[in-house]
Amino acid sequence: MFEEVRESIVNLRRAFEIVRLSDTSIKNKAINAIAKRLNENRTYLIEENAKDIRKARENGVRESLIDRLALNDKRIEEMLKSCEVVLSLKDPIGEVVDSFVREDGLKIYKVREPIGVIAIIYESRPNVTVETTLLALKSGNVILLKGGSDAINSNIALTNIIKEALREANLPESAVELVRSTDRSVVDYIINQRGLIDLVVPRGGKPLIDYVTMNSKVPVLETGAGICHIFVDESANVEKSIQVIDNAKTQRPGTCNAVETLLVHEHIAPKLLPELKKIFDEKGVEIRGCERTKNIINCKLATEEDWETEYLDLIISVKIVSSIDEAIKHISRYSTKHSESILTENYTNAMKFIASIDSSTVYINASTRFTDGGQFGMGAEIGISTQKFHARGPVGLKELTTTKFIVFGDYHTRK
Amino acid sequence: MFEEVRESIVNLRRAFEIVRLSDTSIKNKAINAIAKRLNENRTYLIEENAKDIRKARENGVRESLIDRLALNDKRIEEMLKSCEVVLSLKDPIGEVVDSFVREDGLKIYKVREPIGVIAIIYESRPNVTVETTLLALKSGNVILLKGGSDAINSNIALTNIIKEALREANLPESAVELVRSTDRSVVDYIINQRGLIDLVVPRGGKPLIDYVTMNSKVPVLETGAGICHIFVDESANVEKSIQVIDNAKTQRPGTCNAVETLLVHEHIAPKLLPELKKIFDEKGVEIRGCERTKNIINCKLATEEDWETEYLDLIISVKIVSSIDEAIKHISRYSTKHSESILTENYTNAMKFIASIDSSTVYINASTRFTDGGQFGMGAEIGISTQKFHARGPVGLKELTTTKFIVFGDYHTRK
Repeated sequence: MFEEVRESIVNLRRAFEIVRLSDTSIKNKAINAIAKRLNENRTYLIEENAKDIRKARENGVRESLIDRLALNDKRIEEMLKSCEVVLSLKDPIGEVVDSFVREDGLKIYKVREPIGVIAIIYESRPNVTVETTLLALKSGNVILLKGGSDAINSNIALTNIIKEALREANLPESAVELVRSTDRSVVDYIINQRGLIDLVVPRGGKPLIDYVTMNSKVPVLETGAGICHIFVDESANVEKSIQVIDNAKTQRPGTCNAVETLLVHEHIAPKLLPELKKIFDEKGVEIRGCERTKNIINCKLATEEDWETEYLDLIISVKIVSSIDEAIKHISRYSTKHSESILTENYTNAMKFIASIDSSTVYINASTRFTDGGQFGMGAEIGISTQKFHARGPVGLKELTTTKFIVFGDYHTRK
Repeated sequence: MFEEVRESIVNLRRAFEIVRLSDTSIKNKAINAIAKRLNENRTYLIEENAKDIRKARENGVRESLIDRLALNDKRIEEMLKSCEVVLSLKDPIGEVVDSFVREDGLKIYKVREPIGVIAIIYESRPNVTVETTLLALKSGNVILLKGGSDAINSNIALTNIIKEALREANLPESAVELVRSTDRSVVDYIINQRGLIDLVVPRGGKPLIDYVTMNSKVPVLETGAGICHIFVDESANVEKSIQVIDNAKTQRPGTCNAVETLLVHEHIAPKLLPELKKIFDEKGVEIRGCERTKNIINCKLATEEDWETEYLDLIISVKIVSSIDEAIKHISRYSTKHSESILTENYTNAMKFIASIDSSTVYINASTRFTDGGQFGMGAEIGISTQKFHARGPVGLKELTTTKFIVFGDYHTRK
């Protein structure tokens, strides 16, 4: 049934043997060629994308989702910017990350290597096609792209361009393969190819991620949801705290690192909440508060469901707590282990918070919005890992590598 | 049905909240207490082990397997030695492995953290119970032990001692839990506890490892088999090469890093093979050679099956190749990606070999027997990972950790 996908995987494995040994200059040549062709083929890309948009409108897809699907000059400019960023990043392959020279002179080097065939299963945004291709190639991997069926024409056009660029750089064009089948069961086929596919990265909504993590026979790099928390300790500076909370909620509410739940110490709540409400009212942020919050400000009552919800919208849940321990307990229960922040002037509480909170990123006096490969100096990322295995936090070039021990001897034998 | 295991897992999760925050001194106190009690309770341990041995004999188990099961003074001394080694190792938790200070002064530290609840599924050797407990505790993790049913009395006795030691160190005794059920389906129960168990490590034969890797919903750290290869290039020093091959085969043939297949360049084979055969005849090593090998020395003919077999015994398969490329091709096809070595005086061939071979450890002019946590300066290991995800090669303390980003700000907001 999935003969075409099977063939793609065979071709990818063959291509990997070349890509993994390719010098940085070759890989950069391919990235440059991708940029050039994206720029030159704007009309073609926008026309092919228009087919997807037309079909989506016919199917009655919401305009907000159609916006995610759309390719226009601005989006193409963003892709070119991604090319520029990935070009500028240091190639991680070959980096010696650890070494040990034995007393007998045997030299043991632990060196970064590509992982292999990476399958990415994602939903409608066609820019993901380009971004993940760039990161996979730069790190010496090859990639199987399973995009959303909504974006199939856009993705075919983009991979056509990418394949031309690979040819121009003398790399095998099958280093990047698109799954053309839009049959949903192709996902099952992909996640069963243990041994042929080295890693599966699901990107998209929670149902997709849960399905892949629970059913894959191939190792999964899970980029999870973010129910991020900020706890305002009683010693925090009220004015500065409000700026941080505002930033974490409103700077870009649709992202996984935006704050969703605010925990406020009871001693600072009467000062902080009325001031915060003023700003949130201005900006149209809906507050859903616990009973004690409602005693201080006028807002909707938060239900149990609110503590479990990633709004990705201009909504925030607020709970007043009597101690840092109560805040830590709430976070331990409801957090998706993405990013949490404490705002405080108290050293002991700050240290307690960062030790106790078991999330990918824990902040003292900063907005949760910083959890991002670009902001963390990694240049680019393919998502934020909320798992503990292999990579945790932003997943950039280094996280798309494994290591190998290379040992230099002089006919050494073990005693 | 597995009420007892479910309860153990709940207790482990609670214990993890304490163990992960425990200082090195507390963890070392527990390890010291384990050593003290192992030493003081030799009679008890040997008596309990005798029950397992009696039952095994009644069941007609082979003496070689009974030897693996046996606890005696020598084995207890080895356990005490393991305690000493793990005590001496640097605690990995809290180590800053990377850092980035942004232009706006925000300080981002990537810090080592424990993984959580680690389940280990293993076969009869009771020393694994102690070794894995030591490594898990030192790295701030808690551990669910599913040992072989053959060793159940020994494992109960050992975990009783471990639990007393944990109490003495004021650590929760449920930081180490033994699965007492000997029902085989308990393995299915364990590998389905995604979210409650963070990592499963199967240790044992290939059927067990394959079953766990193919069916687990929990991330798996696979410690695989080793069909290790040595390629003797035409430029190698014959005499020194023979020493290395002899060491790799006979120093301890039952281990995963022993060589199983020897590839010999056709130009050096007539000099090397007769000399090698002399030594192997003396040491009782059976040679199974390809047709061309048989033209040089008198030996059994190797079949396709030989190239795919991890003998773990005094047997070696030998193939003559016409080029380094043929050697690399053979290894790429039959290797289990554990350890491979080239013996050569040619720089270009050496570099080609280490670049081309996609195994956890690649050697130039050294015995494959070095692939071991102790030999690599890691102090101790729980196995050799042949997967590329999370850890590759010897798995020691650092490989039992994850990382967390800790970010120090001054009310920073994202622009």
